[in-house]
Amino acid sequence: IDSRFPAMGTTIFTVMSKLAADCGAVNLSQGFPDFQAEPALFDAMHRYMLAGRNQYAPMAGLPELRQAIVDKVAALYGTRFDVDREVTVTAGATQAIFTAIAAFVRPGDEVIVLEPVYDSYVPAIETVGGKAVFSRLRFPDYTPDWDEVRSLVTPRTRMIIVNSPHNPTGSLLTAADLDRLATIVRGTDIAILSDEVYEHIVYDGEAHASLCGHPELAARSIVVSSFGKTYHITGWKIGYVVGPEALMAEFRKVHQFNVFTVHAPSQLAIAEYMQDASRHLGLAAFYQEKRDFFRALMRDTPFELLPCRGTYFQLARYGQISELPDTDFAQWLTREVGVAVIPVSVFHADGHDEKVVRFCFAKREETLVAAAERLRAAF
Amino acid sequence: IDSRFPAMGTTIFTVMSKLAADCGAVNLSQGFPDFQAEPALFDAMHRYMLAGRNQYAPMAGLPELRQAIVDKVAALYGTRFDVDREVTVTAGATQAIFTAIAAFVRPGDEVIVLEPVYDSYVPAIETVGGKAVFSRLRFPDYTPDWDEVRSLVTPRTRMIIVNSPHNPTGSLLTAADLDRLATIVRGTDIAILSDEVYEHIVYDGEAHASLCGHPELAARSIVVSSFGKTYHITGWKIGYVVGPEALMAEFRKVHQFNVFTVHAPSQLAIAEYMQDASRHLGLAAFYQEKRDFFRALMRDTPFELLPCRGTYFQLARYGQISELPDTDFAQWLTREVGVAVIPVSVFHADGHDEKVVRFCFAKREETLVAAAERLRAAF
Ligand SMILES: CSCCC(=O)C(=O)O
Ligand SMILES: CSCCC(=O)C(=O)O
Repeated sequence: IDSRFPAMGTTIFTVMSKLAADCGAVNLSQGFPDFQAEPALFDAMHRYMLAGRNQYAPMAGLPELRQAIVDKVAALYGTRFDVDREVTVTAGATQAIFTAIAAFVRPGDEVIVLEPVYDSYVPAIETVGGKAVFSRLRFPDYTPDWDEVRSLVTPRTRMIIVNSPHNPTGSLLTAADLDRLATIVRGTDIAILSDEVYEHIVYDGEAHASLCGHPELAARSIVVSSFGKTYHITGWKIGYVVGPEALMAEFRKVHQFNVFTVHAPSQLAIAEYMQDASRHLGLAAFYQEKRDFFRALMRDTPFELLPCRGTYFQLARYGQISELPDTDFAQWLTREVGVAVIPVSVFHADGHDEKVVRFCFAKREETLVAAAERLRAAF
Repeated sequence: IDSRFPAMGTTIFTVMSKLAADCGAVNLSQGFPDFQAEPALFDAMHRYMLAGRNQYAPMAGLPELRQAIVDKVAALYGTRFDVDREVTVTAGATQAIFTAIAAFVRPGDEVIVLEPVYDSYVPAIETVGGKAVFSRLRFPDYTPDWDEVRSLVTPRTRMIIVNSPHNPTGSLLTAADLDRLATIVRGTDIAILSDEVYEHIVYDGEAHASLCGHPELAARSIVVSSFGKTYHITGWKIGYVVGPEALMAEFRKVHQFNVFTVHAPSQLAIAEYMQDASRHLGLAAFYQEKRDFFRALMRDTPFELLPCRGTYFQLARYGQISELPDTDFAQWLTREVGVAVIPVSVFHADGHDEKVVRFCFAKREETLVAAAERLRAAF
């Protein structure tokens, strides 16, 4: 068979989670909590299933959930999207991103992405025949080089993808960044795809600068978020997109023929659960405690921790420990030390290696302690 | 905004279900049951959620469900696929079809489809830059014209899509059809995508001729099925694909970046529920009773019923009633008579109109009686 994607491998998250399981390593690689979500969510789902809500939801999502999303976005960012025409429920954020790219990017179009770049964006671009164009975030703070981004814009640029809070680096875009981005796209027909799945996980009192809250950018953006990260249910695979009607109409053209519609009882359970806003508003404090706990544990190891302003990921330099390339180091750490991590070079198209690995701290304290003990014992 | 798909409209299923709701019509348009699934399925899901099975499933699906699928396929069709490498769980059959097309079809490639053609196939082909090539099923039995199909094969033909039991027509492929198809693709590198979501709904003692059961074709096919149709849970959006390792590896390259993975607790609940094979083996008798009941009711109306050998759809000619094009007739029937149906011409690229509409009879008897009463009163 003549492969359409001969160079495409398996996502690093599958590779490392499998290796972690095979080696009995503490799995701080793939981003998911190892603690339980609230039973209220499960009881609600059970109730809706028993009530017969098991048939196709409308293509854009159930109205109950669309309303809850619109209300949340309005409360947080001041923009009220239209419930019928400007919000669509998706089978997770990954599907939202893939679909948005397929809806806007033609064969030959260019899409600017910022490296390190989440590993689904570029394959999605290539699946529809587009071309990714890379700008590197500046080490070690991982802030965008907007002058470089501007210099990469061509008449073929169809989309710029941003991601804040940023996976894997934990950096944030600020209001000033959004203003810079706005000046770059002003007068062009470039669409913005903004991946904000960690929107509720921002630390130290900083505010999440959502593109929903920047009217000029919001008018040309599809903004993606996810309930998996927010409600500790990554395995449910429910996310959403919001954006202006003209862009959402294009998004839905592809969405309807990609997945058509999304797990109905989950939508109802989440819509009900969202009514208590403390559940998402409390998330930053919840994870800040975990971040600080993990950083404190890591102080007794030779890893050098980079700043973590958002997400539930902690980057660490290991240059004092090893000369290995980060992919080899991550394998070694998993196999020999028993702690699985994600090497960051896989998020660079050219394999650029800053000798940095990513730890996920969305874990119970005992899990983080077990990992730190293994690290301390090894070094 | 410069639309990538200016001509692409909204799927007919969304249009007609919305119109039905707006008009208070009995909805026999979109294909979903209006009766309840078994509580055992909901209780199992609730139990798995409470047990903490809410985080990412492996990309290919949970091993419990992959094993259950492989066992079912082996029992029914005699081919035992590899649990790790030859089966992938999907977010419904639509996502499976979209992903398979994206994995194999390059810009400029041709894909042969049989009309009337399910409405997601051609947009999926166009989303990745491919070109659909059409062969019409022969009215009124909707059997393939294999000589025509053979004549449409060119060096650019990358895939042929078949669908049996066939939606919207209720026709079946036979073992002889599969042999004809095999002679057409022999010696080429054409892949087959086989949509078999109604595999368990075949009437009058006929056997479903799955491509899984035809070793020569199975070696070059991705076969799609769905739990939504089988277990009366269309809103859960869980399906699967099976196929040989070389093709499945290509499928997964795209799958991992399209949806990555699928609703975990549903996978576990379905895996458990599948252990009782009577639940899928009894489906044909269950729906045959509904088919016969509906056909008997329709005898008192001027509709002329076409054969229905499988699926839960009944086609009917309305030439004696109206001269309207079928799209107008379906609208009129929904608005004025209060029975929503699907016009079949929308499944023809050129709008070819045989003056046939599709009724879904996956409904409670009282729903079918209510629809028939409205039809009888109107004519
Ligand atoms: C889609 S699996 C990976 C989860 C995740 O977002 C991450 O680990 O970065
Ligand atoms: C994906 S919604 C349509 C359901 C269906 O398969 C049909 O009605 O034919």
